[in-house]
Order: sequence, then structure tokens, then C-alpha cells
Amino acid sequence: MEPTTGDLTDPLINHADGQLFLHEAFKIIVEEVLCKGTDVKEKVCEWREPEELARLLDLELREKGEPQENLLQRVRDVAKYSIKTSHPRFFNQQFAGVDYHSLAGRFLSEALNTNLFTYEVAPVFVLMEAEVLRGLRALVGWTEGDGLFCPGGSTSNMYAMNLARYRLYPEVKSQGLRSLPQLTVFTSPESHYSVKKGAAFMGFGMDNVILVKGAVPFLVSCTSGTTVQGAFDPLDLIADVCDKHKLWLHVDAAWGGSVLFSKKHSHLMKGVHRANSVAWNPHKMLVAGLQCSVLLLKDTTDLLKKCHCANATYLFQQDKFYDVNLDIGDKSVQCSRKVDCLKLWLMWKAVGSAGLEQRVDKAFLHARYVVDQMKKREGFQLLGDVAPVIKERMMKQGTMMVGYQPLGDRVNFFRITILSPLVSQKDMDFFLDEIERLGNDL
Amino acid sequence: MEPTTGDLTDPLINHADGQLFLHEAFKIIVEEVLCKGTDVKEKVCEWREPEELARLLDLELREKGEPQENLLQRVRDVAKYSIKTSHPRFFNQQFAGVDYHSLAGRFLSEALNTNLFTYEVAPVFVLMEAEVLRGLRALVGWTEGDGLFCPGGSTSNMYAMNLARYRLYPEVKSQGLRSLPQLTVFTSPESHYSVKKGAAFMGFGMDNVILVKGAVPFLVSCTSGTTVQGAFDPLDLIADVCDKHKLWLHVDAAWGGSVLFSKKHSHLMKGVHRANSVAWNPHKMLVAGLQCSVLLLKDTTDLLKKCHCANATYLFQQDKFYDVNLDIGDKSVQCSRKVDCLKLWLMWKAVGSAGLEQRVDKAFLHARYVVDQMKKREGFQLLGDVAPVIKERMMKQGTMMVGYQPLGDRVNFFRITILSPLVSQKDMDFFLDEIERLGNDL
Ligand SMILES: Cc1ncc(COP(=O)(O)O)c(C=O)c1O
Ligand SMILES: Cc1ncc(COP(=O)(O)O)c(C=O)c1O
Repeated sequence: MEPTTGDLTDPLINHADGQLFLHEAFKIIVEEVLCKGTDVKEKVCEWREPEELARLLDLELREKGEPQENLLQRVRDVAKYSIKTSHPRFFNQQFAGVDYHSLAGRFLSEALNTNLFTYEVAPVFVLMEAEVLRGLRALVGWTEGDGLFCPGGSTSNMYAMNLARYRLYPEVKSQGLRSLPQLTVFTSPESHYSVKKGAAFMGFGMDNVILVKGAVPFLVSCTSGTTVQGAFDPLDLIADVCDKHKLWLHVDAAWGGSVLFSKKHSHLMKGVHRANSVAWNPHKMLVAGLQCSVLLLKDTTDLLKKCHCANATYLFQQDKFYDVNLDIGDKSVQCSRKVDCLKLWLMWKAVGSAGLEQRVDKAFLHARYVVDQMKKREGFQLLGDVAPVIKERMMKQGTMMVGYQPLGDRVNFFRITILSPLVSQKDMDFFLDEIERLGNDL
Repeated sequence: MEPTTGDLTDPLINHADGQLFLHEAFKIIVEEVLCKGTDVKEKVCEWREPEELARLLDLELREKGEPQENLLQRVRDVAKYSIKTSHPRFFNQQFAGVDYHSLAGRFLSEALNTNLFTYEVAPVFVLMEAEVLRGLRALVGWTEGDGLFCPGGSTSNMYAMNLARYRLYPEVKSQGLRSLPQLTVFTSPESHYSVKKGAAFMGFGMDNVILVKGAVPFLVSCTSGTTVQGAFDPLDLIADVCDKHKLWLHVDAAWGGSVLFSKKHSHLMKGVHRANSVAWNPHKMLVAGLQCSVLLLKDTTDLLKKCHCANATYLFQQDKFYDVNLDIGDKSVQCSRKVDCLKLWLMWKAVGSAGLEQRVDKAFLHARYVVDQMKKREGFQLLGDVAPVIKERMMKQGTMMVGYQPLGDRVNFFRITILSPLVSQKDMDFFLDEIERLGNDL
């Protein structure tokens, strides 16, 4: 029995009961998500209409708690009806697969439940984040610099915009945009939508993510690995222009950055060392798990801190007994900031840069293989707009998941994303066979 | 042996090996973080100077991977040198303690590794997030409305500012701030620094987080539970003024929001239903684990989506086979968005609203108890600035952790944060004894 509120002699949580529950939940996670969820004989998704699913899950939150057996059944249900994003036939998004070292790192981060704002509450992770950022910067070609883990590439991109305008007009921090000339961002039509969203959020306005006469360009946002087609902007050429006009060069490498691990493919980002900032999402091609995104900076003038600091005395006291530069929290516009470095660090330690290189290279090989096979098959230049129908059949049968979309004036096409280290040739073959099977009467 | 890159027949990751590692890591997590880490006979922190700690952890990332035994030792080391934030003597921050159901929810979220942008990749969590938001809104007093989980209260506060300016001047989204009058935010000097950081980030400028003559006030940001003193702004009085001048009323209840679970203490937020938006962090007082923060909205006009949408065709196709309103991703300025609802949902299911109420009530009782005891003890009105010295001794001995800071023109004082459901009276007594012991020669 739980003690009543008025009684201060006992805590409200019992460790033994709690740990028992955690053990049981762990077993279910391994069984349902990691074993069944990655087994090609099992479905990728267990499709239910929203109304039915809501009923099955019994989502309602009530006054009274529930017994442990019920709760374990809920854990099982959540697993059952969730998409198996680690399944070898999940090609739907720019994340897929599972790395067990990363996952162990994530469990450990969750259990340690600390916050990356000061050295005193996160000594290990302050140092570790610095080391991981250093490792990633080295791949960019920088021996110095700065950086931060952000909750996603969209945020990393916004940070770059904020730093670029601050460098040009430091008064923006206190006075805002109104006293400045109209600032514009240059980017390509294929850039990720987060550039526009960010521009709106930060007060530039979406319309100013194009060239406007009379306006002051302050940042060029290149893309290394566009979201839909995986194209790489020619960084060296763009860097020449930025040099000439003293523009901040930002490289959105959320998707493509991981090619820097590969001797074979890093040429796609040739010139990246000339950038001022790079956004890179190890939660995409490197399978580090959501969320894992960094902003890397060449800057050595403490711009990140100057631009974002608010000097809160309750966290960032200057009379601490250790070097207060280790309190990195004021570099962020967040206050609480989750530990996102450990999962990447542990995975990197486990397989080494060489192992990560191998994964990237293999993803390219898989992509090449699918293209080659596709060319050999008839019917893979479908004319009508059949993708939505095939997609519906695919989801309802649960055999695989792959995204579709239109592009320019072309009708919907399937966009297969290949990155998981869990897939192999037979999964590529399955993809092709399955698209044929699902669409053969159309 | 791992296959070579050129070989497409086998995947690069072996499930059996991976799961074995995960099992071993799980055991270490339970032992080190959950058993030893919550045992009052063990230290809260194992202080090391940064240089020494970096050496002990061997942080460097190398070309080659490491054997499993090494990696398990690393898991152990990370746990050993990390702060035990679940320890009953961790009073340092606005998070502390562990809830095992929440933790199980976090492990499950990490294993499922999906993304809250579309129903198709997160059917369970799209519905679950809606239900949790509904439950929290009900506590605010709203039967309708909208909302979103954000990566922290700072982001939730920024969202509120963005929505308020958009409601007033929808053209801000495309044209930016320059064509608008100078906008200002009203807030109290005790409000959290994220209001200022947000104002800078979003282009208003920090200086405009005060009353400026001739400027257009567009938002009042009240605080329910100030960061340092836990004070509650009088919402009803402020709502009267906002009504009169048609200002957006935002309540930053990141810290204090959880009093809404308590019949005894919810009066502190009387009038909250009159707000336009509420930011609330279950990762603080409710011990849901980082990150768990929501923005709640009274709005029923789809402002959140209108203000933030970019209509990316690769995610938010309109010709899907299900109701595309379930694709909530365009409500966010993020693209990838972590699943933060499951941990709260599972914990809430486990103990019910009644259980959460009990925890909140108990935290208040503990606080009252400490204050009462402190009054009885001599020497608890220390005059000189001894806090930094006591803090250093405390950390180096590792017996407990509590934050200090100055306030106004007063010298440093200790700010004890009491919220963990794992603590009881003896931990309060220990806190008082320990401060006396550590400082008795000063
Ligand atoms: C090129 C590019 N940049 C940025 C992003 C946004 O990253 P995140 O989803 O982490 O916000 C994406 C996501 O797909 C992307 O493809
Ligand atoms: C009153 C208040 N608002 C907002 C925040 C920021 O929340 P977060 O740390 O999740 O960004 C805090 C954090 O301490 C706070 O105390």
C-alpha cells in the first residue's frame, strides 16, 4: 500500500516494484521491438484506422492508477501497433534500422536523466559532447571551432541563421530586427523547408528566403544531400561567391553529412571546410537514433555564447570552484538540453570511424544496386499516379513502408531511403518485387 | 567477422551480438544508476577535475572499434562519473528522482525510434499525444484547444510568442518583423531567462521584453512558479488587463504547472483558464524525465498549423489514404520531433491523476517541513558568502547536491528544490544536518 500524503516517513516510490516492472518492460521491448520488429517474416506495420486504434489502446487518462499486468499489456500494445522503423523493409524515412550500441547509450542517457547546461550536473557529458563535436569537426576539416547538439536539424539551421545575423549586426540581440536593413537568405528551391520555417520563426519572413533587390544578403544556405533527391550543392563554387561578398556560408548537411566518413564519397562535400557552419544529423544516415543533430562552427571567437547568453545567475554563477567555461548551457537557446551525444559516442567507439565509413559505403552500394535492378525491370516507369494506391495496399498489408511524393510537374514517385546497416541485397530485391506485386493490376 | 563493404549479401549488424550487449548494458544501468545511484549510502557525485575525468573516460574517437568488454566498461564508467540525479540527496535542479513507469516508457520510445510528424510513421503516438494534451488541457480548464510537445520549456515559450505575433499580424510569417511596429513583451523581472533568449532569437530583441513607450505590446508572459523563488503571478488580475487590451496572455508554468493536479494547491494558478497559452514541463515537478514539455493552447482556429506550416510535399501529401489532419508535423517548427508523450502517458496510467496529485502535495509538505526545521535551527541565517565554499566541499565529498545563487542585492543562498517522489523526511533532515556539518567552521 502506498503511504498517505501526510506521512513524510516513506517515499512514494518503491524501488523493488519499480525495477521489477522495468525488467518486464525491457523483456517486452526486446521481444516485440527488437526481435519481432526486425524479423522479415513479421509485418512492418499493423495498420488500424485511427478510431479503432484509439479504442484498442484505451488512451484515456483516469483518476486511478492501474495494476502492473495491465501496464505491461499496454507496453506490449504500444509496441504492437507502432511502426517497426528498424525493420529491414522500412524505407519510408531518412531514419531506419537500429544500432545496439547507440540504443544502449540511449537507455543509459535516459536512466541518468541529466541536463547539459552545467559541468556540475553533467561532467561526463560536457566533456563527451566536446569530444564528439571535435571528432565531427575534424571530418569537416577544422582543427578548431565550436558547436552544439540541437534538437534536430531544423533547430541547427535556425542557429546558423541567428549566428550569421548576429555576426553582422550584434545589436540585433538587444534591439531586434526592426532597426536593421531587410535581411535575406539565399538558398536553392531544393533546400529543406526548415530554412523557410526558421526564417518565419526568427522574424525574417519566409519571403526573404530568396533574393530581394535592395535587401542585404547575409547567409547562403547550401544543402549537402537534399531531402528528396539527395543532391549535393557544389560547395567550392558557392564558397568563392561567399568569400567575395563576405557572406556566411552555412551547409545544411543534415542528411548528407555522413559521407564525410567515407573516403570514397566525401568528395561530394568538397570545400565544406570553407563553410562557417555545418548542420549534420547523425540520427539520419548514421542510425544514431532520434534526436541526434549537431551544429558545427568554424568560429573561434565565442560567437555562440555571445549570441545566445542570458547569464542566468541561478545556473551560471561566476564564483564556482571550477572553470565556468565548462558550463556550456548559455551557448544554447534552450535551457534544459537533453544528452544526445552519448549514443553517438558509444556507437562510434564500438565500430570506429572505419565501421561508420563501411556503413555509409554500403548504403551507396545498396542504392546503386536498386537503381541497376530497376532499370532491368519493365514497368518501373509507371505512367499514371498509382503511388497513393500502392502505398495504401502496402500499409494495410504491412509488408513494407516507403514514401512517395510528387516532384515539380511530375506525378507521385516512390522515394526509397536506404541507410540501415540491417539491410542487405535480399531486402532490395524484396522492395522491387513488392512494388510490382502491389501494383501489378494497376 | 564483419562482411566487407562490397558484399551485399549480409547486413552489417548482428542482432544476437547486439542484443547480448544491450542485455549486459541494461544490467549495468540497473546496478549502477538505479540501485547504487539511489542508495543514500552511496555518493551523489564522484567529483573529478575535468582533465582527470577526460583521461579516465578515454573519450577519444578512433579509426578502429573496440571489443564488447571494453565498451561495457565504458558504460560502467559513464554511469560511475555521472551525477546521480535520482539520488534522494540530489536537490540541485528542478528535476530529480526517477519514476520507473516513465523510464520504461522512455526505453520503449527509444527502441521504437520514430518521429512525430505523420500518422503513418507514428500512429500510436499521434493519438497518444493528443490524449495527453487533452488531459493536461482539462486541468487548465479547457474542453477544446490545441497544443504540442516541445523540446523544453524555452521552446514552448518561444512558440507562444510566435503565435501571439502571428495572430496580431499574420503577414509576419511571409514578410518578417521589419514592416511591423515595434512589438514588446511584458513580463516580470522574475520570469525565466528563456523569455529574453526567445525574444532575441525571434528577432524582437531582448530590450523589448519590457515596456517601451510607443511600442505595441502583444503578449504578457506570466510565470506560475518562478525559477528561483517559486512565486506565482496573480493570473486573474493580469487576465483582466489582457482582456481589456486584447493582449495574448501566456502563462509560463514550466515549473509550477503541476500544481493543477492538486486540489489543495491549484488555487495558485486560479484564472489560468483565461490564458491563451500555457507552457508546462512535466519533466520538472512530475519527474517524467528530460525532455517532456508541452505548450497548451486555447485556440480552436488551427493557429498553430497556420503559423508554422510549410506544406512540404514529401511528408504531408494531401492525397493520402487517411485523414491528413493526423499528420501533425506541420504544427511544429521542428521537422524530426522526438516522442515525448509516452513516458508521461505510461506514468499517468500507472498512478492515475490521484497518484500525481499525491506527489505534488507531498513535495509541498516536504518544503514546508524544511522551512519549519530551518527556523528551529540556529545559524541558518548565514551572513557571509559561504555558499560557494560549502558547495565545493559538498561536491568533492559527494554527499549531496544543492544549488546556490545570489538574489537581488543579497549574497548567495542555497536553493533547495524538492520534488522527487523518492525522498522522505530523513532526506530533509539530512540536508539540514549536512549544510551545518559542511559549513560549521565558516
Ligand atoms: C536536408 C535536410 N535538412 C534539414 C532537415 C531537418 O532535420 P530535422 O528533421 O532533424 O529537423 C532535414 C530532414 O529531413 C533534411 O533532409
Ligand atoms: C519558469 C521557467 N520557465 C521556463 C523554463 C525553461 O524550461 P526548459 O529548461 O525546459 O527549457 C524554466 C526552467 O527552469 C523555468 O523555471
